[in-house]
Amino acid sequence: MMASCLNEPGKTWAFWRRLVSSAEVTDGKKLRLGVLASGKGSNLRALAEACASGEIAAEIGLVLCDLEDAGALDVARGAGLPHRFIAPGRFRTKLDDEAESAYIAALREAGVDLILLTGFMRILKGEFLRAFENRVVNIHPSLLPSFPGLEAWKQALDHGVKVTGCTIHFVDQGIDTGRILAQRAVEVLDDDTASSLYARIQEAEHALYPSTVARIARGEISFG
Amino acid sequence: MMASCLNEPGKTWAFWRRLVSSAEVTDGKKLRLGVLASGKGSNLRALAEACASGEIAAEIGLVLCDLEDAGALDVARGAGLPHRFIAPGRFRTKLDDEAESAYIAALREAGVDLILLTGFMRILKGEFLRAFENRVVNIHPSLLPSFPGLEAWKQALDHGVKVTGCTIHFVDQGIDTGRILAQRAVEVLDDDTASSLYARIQEAEHALYPSTVARIARGEISFG
Repeated sequence: MMASCLNEPGKTWAFWRRLVSSAEVTDGKKLRLGVLASGKGSNLRALAEACASGEIAAEIGLVLCDLEDAGALDVARGAGLPHRFIAPGRFRTKLDDEAESAYIAALREAGVDLILLTGFMRILKGEFLRAFENRVVNIHPSLLPSFPGLEAWKQALDHGVKVTGCTIHFVDQGIDTGRILAQRAVEVLDDDTASSLYARIQEAEHALYPSTVARIARGEISFG
Repeated sequence: MMASCLNEPGKTWAFWRRLVSSAEVTDGKKLRLGVLASGKGSNLRALAEACASGEIAAEIGLVLCDLEDAGALDVARGAGLPHRFIAPGRFRTKLDDEAESAYIAALREAGVDLILLTGFMRILKGEFLRAFENRVVNIHPSLLPSFPGLEAWKQALDHGVKVTGCTIHFVDQGIDTGRILAQRAVEVLDDDTASSLYARIQEAEHALYPSTVARIARGEISFG
């Protein structure tokens, strides 16, 4: 029976891989998510609500913040999600080695399958990415490959584009260069300021991130 | 009266410049367009129809092609537009000096105010751009600054983006780097091939090019 299924016309290897991946995820236990955040936690809130409503067939196993007063910690508290502040160490734009090890240990201990970056303002290095290979997802506020790096909405406005947006992608060693999973376009208006444009991009993010993680949880996008 | 108008709150310099620019264009004679094409002429057809229907308050004064059998020449004939083939000379990707001079002379003789490139497959050099400074407009099949250069839809597909589109921009000395006037997003579908994606981008082009030239003709976008 299985053999005849495998020969079914039109069923690609990607189809079967998705099926197996989906079975792995749904068989036994729910997909467990780790969320890393530095900011006010609006994407975390959107993800937590989508998990609670069942839109995403997954649960958030741990929220980690590198800032003790990050709004994301309040969001996690409010939603009853496990959460921790772990000090990032002595650098400004990355975790130091000790901190990185502490982040990896906490996420492993929480048994997370997939790590979602939601405005996490530190570059993750080789050790972290090797620990969770092809299991780290980021959201970036532009239509990559345009405007990688910081304050992408300002870069877009300064460049004079009329359409920008947001991108969900796997994290690799480059800056915002990993495989793209989903994108959504946002129009730039003639009277946009950096903050009005960023606000509309964030609205798009709050829809795109949950719908994309839901597709991952259904096995429609493979990872790991 | 004029002085009090100039002080009216909310009226920016851009507003007054548009008003003056619009008056310059509409006072006396219609905006005259020169169209350069190498291909089948589908953007030319869309522009010609929009001029005929009055959507664009302008007239096409001359269509120039660098290929004797370009479909664009048939489109021009069918629409009763002045048209000429001018041999591009001995290079493959640009006009030679003699040809460039012939193109400039023909466009000047036709009295065109604005030059529209519609899939014109040759780079225009300094002499041409100085002759028509800030008066040369191009349409490019991607959301610039992503994927400048040739076969942008293939570049987009190979990169794995989920959103691409088309861009209308002024032509400067760089490759697809001039000021952006308008953009439209086009979704990349999971089962897209290069040709299915390009077909949808071209549909978007056929709407965006006329609507943008209409805005130029109304003085909403300044040029020259």
